[in-house]
Amino acid sequence: MKKVDIVVVGGSAAGLTAAITARLHYPKKTILLIRQEKQVPIPCGIPYIFGTVGTPAKNLIPDTPLEKNSVELLMAEATDIDRKARVLKTDKEDVQFDRLIIATGSRPIMPPIPGSDKQGVHAILKDVDYLAGLQKKIAAAQDIVIVGGGFIGIEFADEIRKSGEKNVTVVEILDHCLGLAYDREFCEEMGKIVESRGVKLLTSTKVEAIEGGESVQSVKVSGGKTLKADLVLLSIGATANVDLAKKADLRIGLTGGIAVDRTMKTSDENIFACGDCAEKISFFGGAPSPLKLASIATHEARIAGANLFGIRRENCGTVGVWATAVGEFAIGTAGLTEEMARRKGYQTVTASIEGPNRHPGCMPGAENTKVKLVFEASSGILLGGQVSGGGVVGELTNAVSACVQRRMTAEEIAMFQIGTHPALTASPIAYALVNAAEMAIGQMKKGS
Amino acid sequence: MKKVDIVVVGGSAAGLTAAITARLHYPKKTILLIRQEKQVPIPCGIPYIFGTVGTPAKNLIPDTPLEKNSVELLMAEATDIDRKARVLKTDKEDVQFDRLIIATGSRPIMPPIPGSDKQGVHAILKDVDYLAGLQKKIAAAQDIVIVGGGFIGIEFADEIRKSGEKNVTVVEILDHCLGLAYDREFCEEMGKIVESRGVKLLTSTKVEAIEGGESVQSVKVSGGKTLKADLVLLSIGATANVDLAKKADLRIGLTGGIAVDRTMKTSDENIFACGDCAEKISFFGGAPSPLKLASIATHEARIAGANLFGIRRENCGTVGVWATAVGEFAIGTAGLTEEMARRKGYQTVTASIEGPNRHPGCMPGAENTKVKLVFEASSGILLGGQVSGGGVVGELTNAVSACVQRRMTAEEIAMFQIGTHPALTASPIAYALVNAAEMAIGQMKKGS
Repeated sequence: MKKVDIVVVGGSAAGLTAAITARLHYPKKTILLIRQEKQVPIPCGIPYIFGTVGTPAKNLIPDTPLEKNSVELLMAEATDIDRKARVLKTDKEDVQFDRLIIATGSRPIMPPIPGSDKQGVHAILKDVDYLAGLQKKIAAAQDIVIVGGGFIGIEFADEIRKSGEKNVTVVEILDHCLGLAYDREFCEEMGKIVESRGVKLLTSTKVEAIEGGESVQSVKVSGGKTLKADLVLLSIGATANVDLAKKADLRIGLTGGIAVDRTMKTSDENIFACGDCAEKISFFGGAPSPLKLASIATHEARIAGANLFGIRRENCGTVGVWATAVGEFAIGTAGLTEEMARRKGYQTVTASIEGPNRHPGCMPGAENTKVKLVFEASSGILLGGQVSGGGVVGELTNAVSACVQRRMTAEEIAMFQIGTHPALTASPIAYALVNAAEMAIGQMKKGS
Repeated sequence: MKKVDIVVVGGSAAGLTAAITARLHYPKKTILLIRQEKQVPIPCGIPYIFGTVGTPAKNLIPDTPLEKNSVELLMAEATDIDRKARVLKTDKEDVQFDRLIIATGSRPIMPPIPGSDKQGVHAILKDVDYLAGLQKKIAAAQDIVIVGGGFIGIEFADEIRKSGEKNVTVVEILDHCLGLAYDREFCEEMGKIVESRGVKLLTSTKVEAIEGGESVQSVKVSGGKTLKADLVLLSIGATANVDLAKKADLRIGLTGGIAVDRTMKTSDENIFACGDCAEKISFFGGAPSPLKLASIATHEARIAGANLFGIRRENCGTVGVWATAVGEFAIGTAGLTEEMARRKGYQTVTASIEGPNRHPGCMPGAENTKVKLVFEASSGILLGGQVSGGGVVGELTNAVSACVQRRMTAEEIAMFQIGTHPALTASPIAYALVNAAEMAIGQMKKGS
């Protein structure tokens, strides 16, 4: 039987990063990564296959990091774990391990909508062949309904519109797209952009049934309306893939992920889990968190991979940092929105600043940039920030994220030493992150 | 005599920000800002007047923030301070004050080069009329020599090339442009970009004399070479304008700025100073720092403005964060470079990561982005970071700056929860800031 020090099951963002991290921290150990897929799609890049990038073949995670880090690759399906014997069973061969990392990811949630088993109704699977097939079906379709207006839904909608003059409708049960992740003003701004690009956005609307014969012909929504549809995409979220863990009797958490402690260890001390398959807790208060993102997966993988033979890192909980873009307009979020913070029971003080991200504002490439910061009222600690604007939104959100993670106060952010340049940022007088903190300080003073 | 609670002398980045901050922290005080200029140029935007922006009239700091914050404006020259009576004398009227903030900025250093008093030799003054005149002279010139290859020098060179087919040569005494601010590899990369845009870059070269009759005709440089020149620009740095402070017998610091403590208070407890005119110390070790940047000025102004009637903030020293861009290529720096750190006596571990700032790398707008981090070897604390690439460099540098200011260790940066998006950032697997920290951890382990 094959014997390896470290076995990783899963080859997407979490599995690959866990293997690379293990190599870095344990240079002399043998490492095997087991995955089913011949080729692994970049998860966040999947919507872009259907427009900007054009083919699943250009959206692949390369295998070179495995080779460069001396990680052996086995394409096989992991079927069971003999925990006592430390043996992973696969459909190809069994592998004896010292430490195991489970990174089996997630699967799309299939909603209990009547008719969702009809031909022409598709979930979004992270599988290259499936995506290539889906691309052909989308190319042939004319009336497309997307169920779910989260970021996957709106990114798919906009990309499909790029690929041809199709009739694309997004149906969202909440009163705004992205409603779970951003405060209303950001959702509204993004909603307008999405609509300006020819996508129909039906909010506060529930899908009641998918209708037709063998194939979908229409989608019946709340309010008695029926949408013509020859293709339906389901994008209402993902659920942890815990088949292997359940079979091995590992503990499962409250949100359905594999239960892990702060070191990413499962209920078996030789088995770790990370990424979409692992249970998460929030950075704010520690309650279970349903968030699933590739960037969270790699963060957890860097913890799991380092801790295999001695604890070196702990997970402080999921902050929740991400961005999305439609056309030239992008929004990003780090930590809690005002709405989330209130729902969690925080007393908040918020401040928003907007202005051009160049100085003077007539510099080429100037785009209006908005920063909203949410502080805990009594301590002044930053709970979260949202950013909207152009191409700088991704990294500006990461600067906000650094402030959130270090639990910086409004006072500390007001004292943030920023760098500025006419062609790259707002002016130092008007820099939004710092000025929003100052504005919040003013409000806290008035309140006290 | 006019009586005001708070008087600010100087209307550029420091003065304006100090006045706004004072308003925020002291809502009921009367505030007067005194400046000589009718209109104030945005300091960092000055090079762009000569190409991209096209006129000084489009590069002005607006007066609206003064109005919005109920700050009275007096256009006058402050001539002296009667410290005992707390009276500021001006060429218009005298003003009795409770607290005074001096933000008189800096002046260009005039090098002791023979012939530098000839017609056609120009320093760069922050004065709208002067800049409008300079613009006409540059338009009429054909052979332009710029003395000094710091960021002002290369920005001017590139902008002048944009305004017409001129022969532009930058003469730099160090062996690279930007040599005082970036490590060699970044300077070399920027040097190539500058040259690719038609600017001649003469490094390791000293200007020995400016020659001609009444007007400049040529510039004699080391090595016996003579450069034809009908216009010479001097951009070798700036020196604090301390005329008013000296006249009032305030203490002057080691680098020639007005001496201030960490609260930005001068040797007179009712007088504060901030910006280019104030003495600075480094965030790293506390030695005097010669840095002068608008973003440092606004940081100091936020301290001075808040502390006028009770200490609320302290200056932890100048980190040194800034970026520059030529064409589509930008570089940014926060904190110490490897070279600076070594010169200060730190043992360092560095790590550099580069890759596309999109994922997959074929996404439109993908540019190669490089991040270099410099850590203190034994503690693992981040001393500085440099970034090169495209439009995201400004905000990515600010994310690095947050890590430097919070004295984050390599371990903490490796655990940084970043947000990523295909159209906005590198992939979460390859995110340079985090991966450079992981790489440094690997090196520190090997070293220990």
